[in-house]
Amino acid sequence: MRFFDSDYLEGAHPAILQKLMETNFEQTPGYGCDKYCDSAKEKIKAACKAPQAQIYFISGGTQTNATVVDALLASYQGVIAAQTGHIAAHEAGAVEFCGHKVITLPQQQGKLNATDVQDYLETFYADENWEHMVIPGAVYISHPTEWGTLYTKEELKNLSEICHKYDIPLFLDGARLGYGLTSDDTDVTLPDIAKYCDVFYIGGTKVGALFGEAVVITKENLIPHFFTTIKQHGALLAKGRILGIQFDVLFTDDLYLKISRNAIEKANRLKEIFHKKNYKFYMETPTNQQFIVMSNDKIKELKQKISFGFWEKYDDTHTVVRFATSWATTDEAINELDTIL
Amino acid sequence: MRFFDSDYLEGAHPAILQKLMETNFEQTPGYGCDKYCDSAKEKIKAACKAPQAQIYFISGGTQTNATVVDALLASYQGVIAAQTGHIAAHEAGAVEFCGHKVITLPQQQGKLNATDVQDYLETFYADENWEHMVIPGAVYISHPTEWGTLYTKEELKNLSEICHKYDIPLFLDGARLGYGLTSDDTDVTLPDIAKYCDVFYIGGTKVGALFGEAVVITKENLIPHFFTTIKQHGALLAKGRILGIQFDVLFTDDLYLKISRNAIEKANRLKEIFHKKNYKFYMETPTNQQFIVMSNDKIKELKQKISFGFWEKYDDTHTVVRFATSWATTDEAINELDTIL
Amino acid sequence: MRFFDSDYLEGAHPAILQKLMETNFEQTPGYGCDKYCDSAKEKIKAACKAPQAQIYFISGGTQTNATVVDALLASYQGVIAAQTGHIAAHEAGAVEFCGHKVITLPQQQGKLNATDVQDYLETFYADENWEHMVIPGAVYISHPTEWGTLYTKEELKNLSEICHKYDIPLFLDGARLGYGLTSDDTDVTLPDIAKYCDVFYIGGTKVGALFGEAVVITKENLIPHFFTTIKQHGALLAKGRILGIQFDVLFTDDLYLKISRNAIEKANRLKEIFHKKNYKFYMETPTNQQFIVMSNDKIKELKQKISFGFWEKYDDTHTVVRFATSWATTDEAINELDTIL
Amino acid sequence: MRFFDSDYLEGAHPAILQKLMETNFEQTPGYGCDKYCDSAKEKIKAACKAPQAQIYFISGGTQTNATVVDALLASYQGVIAAQTGHIAAHEAGAVEFCGHKVITLPQQQGKLNATDVQDYLETFYADENWEHMVIPGAVYISHPTEWGTLYTKEELKNLSEICHKYDIPLFLDGARLGYGLTSDDTDVTLPDIAKYCDVFYIGGTKVGALFGEAVVITKENLIPHFFTTIKQHGALLAKGRILGIQFDVLFTDDLYLKISRNAIEKANRLKEIFHKKNYKFYMETPTNQQFIVMSNDKIKELKQKISFGFWEKYDDTHTVVRFATSWATTDEAINELDTIL
Repeated sequence: MRFFDSDYLEGAHPAILQKLMETNFEQTPGYGCDKYCDSAKEKIKAACKAPQAQIYFISGGTQTNATVVDALLASYQGVIAAQTGHIAAHEAGAVEFCGHKVITLPQQQGKLNATDVQDYLETFYADENWEHMVIPGAVYISHPTEWGTLYTKEELKNLSEICHKYDIPLFLDGARLGYGLTSDDTDVTLPDIAKYCDVFYIGGTKVGALFGEAVVITKENLIPHFFTTIKQHGALLAKGRILGIQFDVLFTDDLYLKISRNAIEKANRLKEIFHKKNYKFYMETPTNQQFIVMSNDKIKELKQKISFGFWEKYDDTHTVVRFATSWATTDEAINELDTIL
Repeated sequence: MRFFDSDYLEGAHPAILQKLMETNFEQTPGYGCDKYCDSAKEKIKAACKAPQAQIYFISGGTQTNATVVDALLASYQGVIAAQTGHIAAHEAGAVEFCGHKVITLPQQQGKLNATDVQDYLETFYADENWEHMVIPGAVYISHPTEWGTLYTKEELKNLSEICHKYDIPLFLDGARLGYGLTSDDTDVTLPDIAKYCDVFYIGGTKVGALFGEAVVITKENLIPHFFTTIKQHGALLAKGRILGIQFDVLFTDDLYLKISRNAIEKANRLKEIFHKKNYKFYMETPTNQQFIVMSNDKIKELKQKISFGFWEKYDDTHTVVRFATSWATTDEAINELDTIL
Repeated sequence: MRFFDSDYLEGAHPAILQKLMETNFEQTPGYGCDKYCDSAKEKIKAACKAPQAQIYFISGGTQTNATVVDALLASYQGVIAAQTGHIAAHEAGAVEFCGHKVITLPQQQGKLNATDVQDYLETFYADENWEHMVIPGAVYISHPTEWGTLYTKEELKNLSEICHKYDIPLFLDGARLGYGLTSDDTDVTLPDIAKYCDVFYIGGTKVGALFGEAVVITKENLIPHFFTTIKQHGALLAKGRILGIQFDVLFTDDLYLKISRNAIEKANRLKEIFHKKNYKFYMETPTNQQFIVMSNDKIKELKQKISFGFWEKYDDTHTVVRFATSWATTDEAINELDTIL
Repeated sequence: MRFFDSDYLEGAHPAILQKLMETNFEQTPGYGCDKYCDSAKEKIKAACKAPQAQIYFISGGTQTNATVVDALLASYQGVIAAQTGHIAAHEAGAVEFCGHKVITLPQQQGKLNATDVQDYLETFYADENWEHMVIPGAVYISHPTEWGTLYTKEELKNLSEICHKYDIPLFLDGARLGYGLTSDDTDVTLPDIAKYCDVFYIGGTKVGALFGEAVVITKENLIPHFFTTIKQHGALLAKGRILGIQFDVLFTDDLYLKISRNAIEKANRLKEIFHKKNYKFYMETPTNQQFIVMSNDKIKELKQKISFGFWEKYDDTHTVVRFATSWATTDEAINELDTIL
């Protein structure tokens, strides 16, 4: 059975396993205080052109989102996100579990619109009762979004300016960041993200690592005692080196971008195939996720041979499904898809 | 200055102060274990025709909502509410502070539609990823709503049936319950509410008490150790008798309904006046709150002589304002309003 | 039946009820933004000789403790308290419910020893693993303590110095503050408390009010957006004036101290009686609570005629019980006790 | 530099890396719904002789403790633990962050005494004010303890009986379980633990895995919707297979016990050496951690050549330090230690 459900179906890039093998019996201190974490941090700071940044490694995306958002917010604050934002919809209330409301605004193709954020904040403080409501304390966006779409540099800049106007940090969820950075249709670079975001994370789990995300705090002293907060959230890995080694490999010789690019190339072929066969796109995106409207009968038929993801109900007889490529997707897989569709 | 901002502008019904005077030097045990609380509980159970109910007294509405919702939900559950529900909009995230998401659905004139709840629950469990999302564990409605509107008996019945179909409790916020029960346009009685809701509260703060709400749990053993949960939430009043005495008075000789009715009669006159003077209603309601669209200039002018509440921006030159009557509103106040408008 | 169980057995001082009567039909804004709250705040600041202080009124003690402690602490911090501190033992985990650990240190007669706090903080930061532990972010003390004992000015000063050395606030729970200030054996005045504590509260519930505590924040900008935090905790009373009126009365013509003194005088008589009748004191205190060791048989016998509080098991045949006087205790009550014991 | 600081200094057992290599490009579903997790679960159930058990894999120990404890407790409950319990001392308040108090009892060599638990529970419910306190809802123990000590089968049985008498679950933290099961001085087997505990976890991070713990729920329906709770806590690994593969390898041909035994054998040699050289033991244990009292000068000298862990201050000139062996400790390391000490 061939899977196109998501981008975390395989293990890790071989170079990562190779490095884990080579270093396996070295002894290092725990909790991220080892030379591999140090080296990875330096390489990430260089790639971000952000020498002042502080880097932390966390095991997974939901954990990273909840830990960062909780660390950014005061007890009485909430975080602004698009209705379709991962923290709003698919993290089982991890942010609310930390005591914070996710303030949802309408989304445009999965994106948060700077004007909507501006309007929300203006209206909020214009409301005589604002002190009786959750005070917005941060803005969360994902890039690529949950719908595979991308912010332009201009859009990021605008969001950043509004956040700073109201003195609240902008946090970018980069679970699939590589697939955004290597898209054909983007003008956003890693240094741009480091420039416009106060905090963001570089996704490893979906981009070639066994697991792990690299949190980049671009402003100094933005989050005091983040180490303890990570521990408190159960997000501090004892063998931090395992995360350090993976990101050290991913940020050596641009491996992160190179393997990300594979997902884009395979996605481009995949889109051609769907067009060629006249499938109806629900959302055609510049990244590694494509959303197709399919009849439930067709889905049933295809599921005999390939696996892909349910996304949402379209109508009584049709469903929106997701096909995702990844760093590991092969030409064989795409060819097979071509013959099956 | 005459105030029409809300229904908690005055103190308490004189009979309550009188009773507090009479009983002032009696010694009673604390925490609601006194004879006045016992007596009030019996009278409330009788008025609800719910002998099996358990009654608890809590100081305020937000506190009651957060404590009840938290007690009803498992850690991984959230509560469904209308977007305009008080817990969703105007309680500073008190429910999220307890770790639970408020799952908001669209509102119809401030009401939650049974069909929308049904659709949400169906769609939720039809989603292959539902276990990654906040599991709906209760439904919150307010009656009257934040927009002064009322559920019909049929609407309550439908909501109740859907909740029970999915085995989740229905919780009714009755901060202004008296004004709903004595409206000219309602077919809902207190026993109806006790019949269709698993938990609800009878508002005192806005209906003649100095402060205090009476929580009615209509199902036995629905909330184990609620006493301790109330304490944990800081919602247990040491001198519980103060709440017991107030509700004992309010539920003697139908005082609660009698004084509620005053607010309705004054609201009816108020509506006539606004119509007579051709004011534009944003929402004309069968209860004690009326919402008017006014030009900002007119508001500025009127504010010289009377006080009323900002509700929301209507357009750049107009605002929706609220005029509320209460158990304490006098004919003089209405007459004065008539001359001023 | 005569009760000596606690100091919240009666209603309120008659002057308070009188004032509630007089002001009952005045209309005021809600949430503490009324002239009575303003007046009470000014009088409290004057009594504290702390013109820069910010004052907030909250309904009850547990609620005040949890709200203030949560507002003082960062998410990753805990609060230091004596093992017998009310927040550690008898508030149903209200502080932990807010996500914070209560770090308990040994108590000396219910008091927290400055040296113990100093040692704890030194040892904490000397531990190589301190970043893996709860970071101490505030110190909680009660005055009088749960055992009726009092800090000396010197002890308060020492605690204050250690807190400031480590840059953490000192919070004093004054649920029974009046009974400490009017004790025969104290050198601590209200201005002393305002001088040495960063936050404290003046208890009303146990000292003549129907309910309510006055939080005094002596440092400017110590707690941003405390109003919203109070609301989020469900601790914001809609009719704030009810609290304002009570404290305005209590802080007019030293009423608070005058009525507190009554409890001390009655406690002095009560102590004489217990001594005269050769009862064994478990803790004889300079305030309104006295702790006696009694045989369980004697307790059973006395309970026929008077009520008093179980405190803790002493041995298999004896129990420590508490007798408390209050602002409302009469000579008749003490005389009756004399005849009964 | 040779490290004896802890048991998580190296990577993983080579067989695990080998298997990760072999399976690397297989595609599997995420979130633990893959064949490797299924296989590992079956093997663990067999090893536990607990066919009815439910198994979940979580990345780390603190995360596992907080997630399980939170899932076991009602909102108003706390967990009983020894003062030295990991959740009480070294997890940055992760349990309190979930809203629950850790109720600490005195420890005997790191162990919780069944009689102390019994006494605590009896005294708790004998206290007239118990409903004002945190209700004990679970008991936490670690085996081996933080001090390297072990419960006997009899002690486990007694704790289990008391827990069940009060209808609260017994949870065992097995972060170092392998080192307990293979000690020379234990009569406790894995099936014994499955028999006496309601929930426990089998530690991988410290016993041969890159990371990961296996939670074993031995009672059916003890924790509803645990999957969602894990997700909510940010503890659900996207590539669950990585955990499944590791535990599948560890539970094939008793690898888990075999490699655990290595740590014990090396610890035995290490103990001989310390005795031979007349070092003073603070705690000599039957497992892989040994605690030595050393002069601070000696520590300074040794730290030139080897690394070991600070544990706690002993006196002004001495410190308690920890030496730990692990599945990966070699004879060379022990020989080197012998020459250095």
